[in-house]
Amino acid sequence: MQNQSSTFYQTHSPVLEAAVKAVHERSFYSAYPENPSPKTYGETADADGKAAFEAMLGKPFAELKQYKPEYWAGEEVSPYTQEALGITYPVFDTDFLLERAKADASAWASLSPEQRAGILIETLERIKGRFFEIAYATMHTTGQGYMMAFQASGPHAADRALEAIALGYEELKRFPESVLWDKPMGKFNIRLDKKWKAVPRGVSLVIGCSTFPTWNTVPGLYASLITGNTVIVKPHPKAIIPIAIVVAEIQSVLKECGLDAGICQLAADTQEHPLTLELAESPAVSLIDYTGGTAFGNRLEAISGKTVFTEKAGVNSVILDSVKDLDPVLANLAFSVCLYSGQMCTAPQNFFIPAKGIETSEGKVSFDEVAERFCKQVLALTENPKAGPFVLGAIQNPATKDRVGNSGSLAKVLLASGNITNPQYPNARTATPLVLETASENLALFSSELFGPIALLIKTHNTDQSIELAADLAGKHGAISCGAYTTDERIMDSVEEAMGAVGTPVSFNLTGGIYVNQNAGFSDFHVTGGNPAGNASFTNPEFIVKRFTWVGFRRPAAEPVSA
Amino acid sequence: MQNQSSTFYQTHSPVLEAAVKAVHERSFYSAYPENPSPKTYGETADADGKAAFEAMLGKPFAELKQYKPEYWAGEEVSPYTQEALGITYPVFDTDFLLERAKADASAWASLSPEQRAGILIETLERIKGRFFEIAYATMHTTGQGYMMAFQASGPHAADRALEAIALGYEELKRFPESVLWDKPMGKFNIRLDKKWKAVPRGVSLVIGCSTFPTWNTVPGLYASLITGNTVIVKPHPKAIIPIAIVVAEIQSVLKECGLDAGICQLAADTQEHPLTLELAESPAVSLIDYTGGTAFGNRLEAISGKTVFTEKAGVNSVILDSVKDLDPVLANLAFSVCLYSGQMCTAPQNFFIPAKGIETSEGKVSFDEVAERFCKQVLALTENPKAGPFVLGAIQNPATKDRVGNSGSLAKVLLASGNITNPQYPNARTATPLVLETASENLALFSSELFGPIALLIKTHNTDQSIELAADLAGKHGAISCGAYTTDERIMDSVEEAMGAVGTPVSFNLTGGIYVNQNAGFSDFHVTGGNPAGNASFTNPEFIVKRFTWVGFRRPAAEPVSA
Repeated sequence: MQNQSSTFYQTHSPVLEAAVKAVHERSFYSAYPENPSPKTYGETADADGKAAFEAMLGKPFAELKQYKPEYWAGEEVSPYTQEALGITYPVFDTDFLLERAKADASAWASLSPEQRAGILIETLERIKGRFFEIAYATMHTTGQGYMMAFQASGPHAADRALEAIALGYEELKRFPESVLWDKPMGKFNIRLDKKWKAVPRGVSLVIGCSTFPTWNTVPGLYASLITGNTVIVKPHPKAIIPIAIVVAEIQSVLKECGLDAGICQLAADTQEHPLTLELAESPAVSLIDYTGGTAFGNRLEAISGKTVFTEKAGVNSVILDSVKDLDPVLANLAFSVCLYSGQMCTAPQNFFIPAKGIETSEGKVSFDEVAERFCKQVLALTENPKAGPFVLGAIQNPATKDRVGNSGSLAKVLLASGNITNPQYPNARTATPLVLETASENLALFSSELFGPIALLIKTHNTDQSIELAADLAGKHGAISCGAYTTDERIMDSVEEAMGAVGTPVSFNLTGGIYVNQNAGFSDFHVTGGNPAGNASFTNPEFIVKRFTWVGFRRPAAEPVSA
Repeated sequence: MQNQSSTFYQTHSPVLEAAVKAVHERSFYSAYPENPSPKTYGETADADGKAAFEAMLGKPFAELKQYKPEYWAGEEVSPYTQEALGITYPVFDTDFLLERAKADASAWASLSPEQRAGILIETLERIKGRFFEIAYATMHTTGQGYMMAFQASGPHAADRALEAIALGYEELKRFPESVLWDKPMGKFNIRLDKKWKAVPRGVSLVIGCSTFPTWNTVPGLYASLITGNTVIVKPHPKAIIPIAIVVAEIQSVLKECGLDAGICQLAADTQEHPLTLELAESPAVSLIDYTGGTAFGNRLEAISGKTVFTEKAGVNSVILDSVKDLDPVLANLAFSVCLYSGQMCTAPQNFFIPAKGIETSEGKVSFDEVAERFCKQVLALTENPKAGPFVLGAIQNPATKDRVGNSGSLAKVLLASGNITNPQYPNARTATPLVLETASENLALFSSELFGPIALLIKTHNTDQSIELAADLAGKHGAISCGAYTTDERIMDSVEEAMGAVGTPVSFNLTGGIYVNQNAGFSDFHVTGGNPAGNASFTNPEFIVKRFTWVGFRRPAAEPVSA
């Protein structure tokens, strides 16, 4: 390898040091500026990024250092224009990808943790230079609004990647490289030189999803890379371009270091000829990261002999018990339901409200009034032309739009779903939230994920039942987030106890500019691994240590020069 | 809970501190004195321990704080006398055990890591007082020699338990309990109080084996306990008493702390009515630790939704390339083959020797001469009445004795297996090593574990082939240890590279009083998890962190008093 990598390490060791510290202190909010303002990123960054994205449309994506594809294909469609992007990607034979990943394994594994960390942090610096381009790429594949597309696919994804690098680096450096083991045996000592190597598991397959193509992909990608594995990124065929740019930048830095792009490859495919199972079931693949539906996730988890990290579907609950001021609470929740039209894995779906209503500082407010005021808050947002279109974005998958359309018959409709007019994109595929009312007896209705902008207001006997139902659903069907509103510390404790036992994080009493859907790198663990919603957690130690093996080597120590 | 536990913590925090340090420095040799001398443990400790063990024979084991069994049963037979021990144990309905384990889960989980560590270290102190009794119990269930029985079941097992407590404690304390997350939003800050809980997985089932009933059981047992899980120990029906004493001492300390014995239960069973699968398949069980045969281990690993740690069978190799002095090498290897009659999971089986012989400082020694001198070293040990019976011990399982008897037809016999006369136990079930010669072409013969005192000297084309075969076997069939002898640093590197890639630790050039079979708490990782021999590793971080889940809770921070 060339000299650059050590330069990268020299240059970026303060970043690494700060990141390791942030991982431990868990109060760091962002390593990469999350405000897409000209002040932060430069006057022309936004326009340049937009132009760069538009220049890619209708052409083969030519940035990858992967050659000799079987053919080129691409089927991305913008949820904003409902037109094909026309970008095509090289599609490779899976054996070809796997052979290349294996061929480059030893060069990558032989680097030191410092070298790998330096190279990987440099890739994030390069990606930072393309945050705006990635933002537009994300908007036009996922339907995210501009701000979310920028933050989630740009700085927040880079935060998660850096977090994985930092914790990976720390785990790799956790034990001494070598020691003298000196054991008194009475009349003599046994002295052994011992050393340990962190041996990578092998080839890592990272399977992306269509809604968060970079944010959900980079944690596994960087966790596998820092621990010395080679990676094949298999994006969702409807959301390739954001992560393709990331992979291209990684390949570019690898090449500058004299390394081969086989260390990190893109495996684009099509819905007609999916490559995922072929790759996942190959004996060459040791690690699998997956974000997506539960059925396929369970299938991957059942492949014998693999280490599989999943983020699958969950049913997220909000428990409403008592509040100080009701409207700021309902405004906060309405925003959570509207944000990216309920297409976040952390979006709340089930709102448990006691039949007798909830206590507020103005007195008891009935269930019906809570429901009515909640719907008003949703309307206030969706009908606000300056906010609605940008908060809701567009619907990624036509099936989600259909689900919203068909769900009105499931229960009493409190607020019907409609379209929202996007001034920039008149053809956008949109859906405003459908709000339904049901009773706690209708367990079957609210036991499964109704992905998209659908909120169920569930009338419970009391808060105890609300907690019991929320915990039971999380334990049986999984949950990634939970919101709870109560002014009673004892109820707070009960919620913590019940939701904690089923591995579900809880946000209490959020109002204002912070939402149950959001979670932060270097602070919040995303998906705890403690319930059926998945076994991956960004980024806890388990997410890292399962990607390599400690192997020890020992030999008699040379005799000391003087005894 | 009563006051004692905080006293335990006060008393033993220096032990914990030292253990945490030792886990990291990896050069600590033992926390508990491994020399069973009167000076270390007191003049009467040995005689008292023997008498205590003998007093248990022929009676119900009455020390457990587990009541209302279905019936009492016991079928242990001493490999030294071939007579039944006559000790019976309470046998419980599995639902009864599981209900009790669940009922006590929250009391145990609610303790702090400090409290649990204090209580668990106190249990080790109590067990230390019974090391000699446990040694005799181990001899008369496993057939181990006295010294191994004392060390492996006593101090070395306690070391492994303490190591699990130390790493568990550290992981539980790794992140702050709470932080103020203070995020600048431009005109204002979002301030959240965040806190995290390590939530235990649930009920842990630890399945013991017949050859190392405490050493292989306590790592999973203590790793699960320190991380807050309740544990059911399911010993092998032929080796209950050593671990029954351990469980009884744990229950006794729990009771003194006002805690219930449901936190750590013994689930004795019989070969006729095994309880293992019933327990393992119960939805109540989240964690499984298992030591034993591969077929059953694979079955456990395939149960969906469980976290399973296994130590299964492996095929261990020795690669002989070049040495300084041959006889000390062969003496060391002969000892490794004889030690506990090859019934250690780390015992070498396949000895790869180049057809052209090996280089020594006296010149080349032919394959045949190496073989002949190796057999002489085996005989020198087995025919030495002062060493042989004590090093070889007895054969735990009659099936092992049969295997040795039947294996003579598999290949050319260089040394036939015989009996060894044990002056103390004329009825001991014994077998001296069977040494066979075969060629590298007979892959099928040496590809599976021939458990017991069976050594295969395999004639290879050259050392490259020896390495390739050793690595290939480890990758396909698993390996827990590897010995290599070479004076060539480049070959050493090749062995490290090849065996490291298949997750197998290597001991180079051992002679004198240290053997490839041995591995030390606080220093050697036992079973790396990197090959089919098992996915558990005593004690790496993975062995700990998979036993609990980090769950976060957050709420708006109170406004600061002055801005």
